[in-house]
Amino acid sequence: MGQYPWHGLLTIENESSIPVSLQIANAIIKEIHTGHMQPGTKLPGVLDAAQIFKVNKKTIEKAYSELSSQQWVNILPKIGTFISDSLPAMKYQSLKNSSQVVISTDPNYSLEEHHIDRFSEITNGNEIIFNDGLPDNRLIDHALINRTYRSILKLKSYRKLLSYTTSLGDEVLREVLAKYLNGTRGIPCRTENIMITRGSQMALYLSMSLLLRKEDVAIVSDPNYFFADETLKYLNADIKKVKVDKNGIVVDEIEALCNKGKVRLVYVTPHHHHPTTVTLSADRRMHLLELAERYRFAIIEDDYDFDFHYKHNPILPLVSVNSNGSVIYIGSFSKTISPSFRIGYMVAPKKIIRQAADLRKIIDFQGDTILERTIAQLIDQGDLQRMVRKSLKEYRKRRDFLCDNLKLELGQFFSFDKPSGGMAIWGKFSNDVCLKNLSSTARENNIVISDGTPYRSDNCLRLGFASLEPAEMTNAVLILKDILLKQVRE
Amino acid sequence: MGQYPWHGLLTIENESSIPVSLQIANAIIKEIHTGHMQPGTKLPGVLDAAQIFKVNKKTIEKAYSELSSQQWVNILPKIGTFISDSLPAMKYQSLKNSSQVVISTDPNYSLEEHHIDRFSEITNGNEIIFNDGLPDNRLIDHALINRTYRSILKLKSYRKLLSYTTSLGDEVLREVLAKYLNGTRGIPCRTENIMITRGSQMALYLSMSLLLRKEDVAIVSDPNYFFADETLKYLNADIKKVKVDKNGIVVDEIEALCNKGKVRLVYVTPHHHHPTTVTLSADRRMHLLELAERYRFAIIEDDYDFDFHYKHNPILPLVSVNSNGSVIYIGSFSKTISPSFRIGYMVAPKKIIRQAADLRKIIDFQGDTILERTIAQLIDQGDLQRMVRKSLKEYRKRRDFLCDNLKLELGQFFSFDKPSGGMAIWGKFSNDVCLKNLSSTARENNIVISDGTPYRSDNCLRLGFASLEPAEMTNAVLILKDILLKQVRE
Repeated sequence: MGQYPWHGLLTIENESSIPVSLQIANAIIKEIHTGHMQPGTKLPGVLDAAQIFKVNKKTIEKAYSELSSQQWVNILPKIGTFISDSLPAMKYQSLKNSSQVVISTDPNYSLEEHHIDRFSEITNGNEIIFNDGLPDNRLIDHALINRTYRSILKLKSYRKLLSYTTSLGDEVLREVLAKYLNGTRGIPCRTENIMITRGSQMALYLSMSLLLRKEDVAIVSDPNYFFADETLKYLNADIKKVKVDKNGIVVDEIEALCNKGKVRLVYVTPHHHHPTTVTLSADRRMHLLELAERYRFAIIEDDYDFDFHYKHNPILPLVSVNSNGSVIYIGSFSKTISPSFRIGYMVAPKKIIRQAADLRKIIDFQGDTILERTIAQLIDQGDLQRMVRKSLKEYRKRRDFLCDNLKLELGQFFSFDKPSGGMAIWGKFSNDVCLKNLSSTARENNIVISDGTPYRSDNCLRLGFASLEPAEMTNAVLILKDILLKQVRE
Repeated sequence: MGQYPWHGLLTIENESSIPVSLQIANAIIKEIHTGHMQPGTKLPGVLDAAQIFKVNKKTIEKAYSELSSQQWVNILPKIGTFISDSLPAMKYQSLKNSSQVVISTDPNYSLEEHHIDRFSEITNGNEIIFNDGLPDNRLIDHALINRTYRSILKLKSYRKLLSYTTSLGDEVLREVLAKYLNGTRGIPCRTENIMITRGSQMALYLSMSLLLRKEDVAIVSDPNYFFADETLKYLNADIKKVKVDKNGIVVDEIEALCNKGKVRLVYVTPHHHHPTTVTLSADRRMHLLELAERYRFAIIEDDYDFDFHYKHNPILPLVSVNSNGSVIYIGSFSKTISPSFRIGYMVAPKKIIRQAADLRKIIDFQGDTILERTIAQLIDQGDLQRMVRKSLKEYRKRRDFLCDNLKLELGQFFSFDKPSGGMAIWGKFSNDVCLKNLSSTARENNIVISDGTPYRSDNCLRLGFASLEPAEMTNAVLILKDILLKQVRE
């Protein structure tokens, strides 16, 4: 046994789910790895070891037999147990080095810090949160969703659903969705044109990734949806920004860029522009589609909140009047049901869908088929449509309430147009307001609002109204007013 | 009204969820888009249109007002309704061109056809399937999982869970998992070292994507796990293959490659090599870790089926004895619970975990937090461990049964070693057997076995035993025997 510190080798944990014999074997393996025990070293005899570790003799025998079957030691009957000679000798590693990281990564991309992280990481559960425009989880009919989910598990075919399947998504959901999109949005698509993804972000990534080669030109609006910009940056696109006004993205500027050089794709949110909430006007829609055909670029149409339009009926997406396959359409159920049910989809020509499915295998393999089938059933039974109508009615009230309240209380500081759709108000604080200061002081008072950085737009921000009840909004607006009055006085 | 074919414009669908007025408005929008109706055109009067479409006058008024609010038409009181002059004139598009695809993609990567697709796409539900090594869904305790899931929804904090969260995964699962991995696998990790992913494939993609620049050298075994190879191909790695024998990947060959040039990463499945099921021997483990430190490459350790080891206790992963941060460890609950619950994880130095979380935002945003919390609870209550023990007992029986059966019935055609872990047998058919032929004839008899192509290994394949009951295996083996006897006779 010599000087070897057997006694300090390990503290046996009797509560652990690992058998004591394995704890001893593992401790010895670690000692070999770190060079503390060298090949050829003789281990203490079974009786000695049993004394040292204060365990039964049988436990030591088991430990040694485990080490032997893993080839760490040789047991020579009546001679002793030795650390195998065929192991390479390890350099003694001082514990001081144990936190040293050998591998380093040097990504050519890093995500900009974003408020969504801060929202979720820092909240204590008691704040009133003006989020980016999220649905109210309190309105979700969990009982119905759960009932539907369980009914799927009772299907004869559930075993197949529970196994690996294709990366295109559940066949039944694709079929139902094709019919649904045709019926409600006039999108001329069939099952083969649809791929189910995890939320819209995966559809964004897949479509952009398929379309873009390094340094291809991609046009976006300024300001734009944060994660669309980030995805393009990640893919090393040459991002060109064009203005957005009350009629949506300025298509004349897109045309000017097309005249300067090859454009590969244009990313748009025509229904309710993100973040400004404006709707792309009829003439610009036609102009954009005409440009796409003339200059042969792809349009990625992100219709993340199609269902939530208050003024008139939802407007037909670009893809529904595009007959030459230049539009990839992206939608999502995250706003309709819940962000935690990450189900989105992508509508595109069949060939592109097949390629996207291949790529999806690499990054994610496949979706949650049971959840996908659940959504299919909710659509097929009309439940989803009922959910949307119910939420829409409530969100319209909340929008009106917050707009009136903001005009009344913050009129001197905050200017905005009432949004005709979506779940947030886009507005601008007057120049005497310091948004960073407002955001941090509000936080101290349990009110969460953005400091404007994710929109990269001068003193502008989004105030989500859909997830807040009127009393919460009144309360929050009054607190903001107090802060602003003090800020301006100082 | 002139010659305009109003009557043929649309067939009104009274069953549709779209109001009739919107159906009419949408039909007119499409006509404008396709150039059939030009700017300035006068629409028929309300009474005329009501007659044409056989609807109420009010319905037409609603349709025109919808068109007006969307800016497609101008309504001049007492004069008429005109298609807006501010719209660009569209070239008349013949319907013949409507399937033409303007955008094309030219991916520099395409996935090789793989048996998993064929398995799931072609099965009729009545086959006996020798899959690649999947768990038996019939053993899943759905009631327990569902009960746990619902209990999460009753938590006071569920609202926060249902909203957007971080891309690192549910904080509680990360905490519980750190403790679990420490206690059961000796992995010295903390919450900050863990990221929850969708199955192991996303962890593979994220880690490889962070480590590799174009043409960096990545070493894999030959044969290797199909989707690890595909991921490396997608990332344009310079893939070097080294042999695998009964003691696992041949580490001496890795050393030889290190002497030739810079190696960036080595992908290994030490516990049960995929596809051959062999376990990496003790001396090679030490040698590999020593090389990683000497040549400063990263090891990606894919421990996809840690729990399923039959011979002795599961062997400590490389990462648990690696003190210098050169190993990224990947695990998954897909084999333990079900492939449809896509929850995997990645253990790595904190810095790498942060970078992986950024990248994950781009491809997928975040996981299914409720499901993640459910798994956390199953682990915390010891349910997961009980599930594993129950399955392990059953799978051991099935392995023994299939091994005995194959030896007895197919001994002359098929040679293999009894695997000490995993859910599949790796074996080789004798050279007089045509595997493609066997696979297709078996299919006609409702038996599904691979034709060997995904393993890229001469006449070898994997026969998954875990998801089949003894009677199914007996049946299948007898049918295979019949086919083989006929094939050889011919």
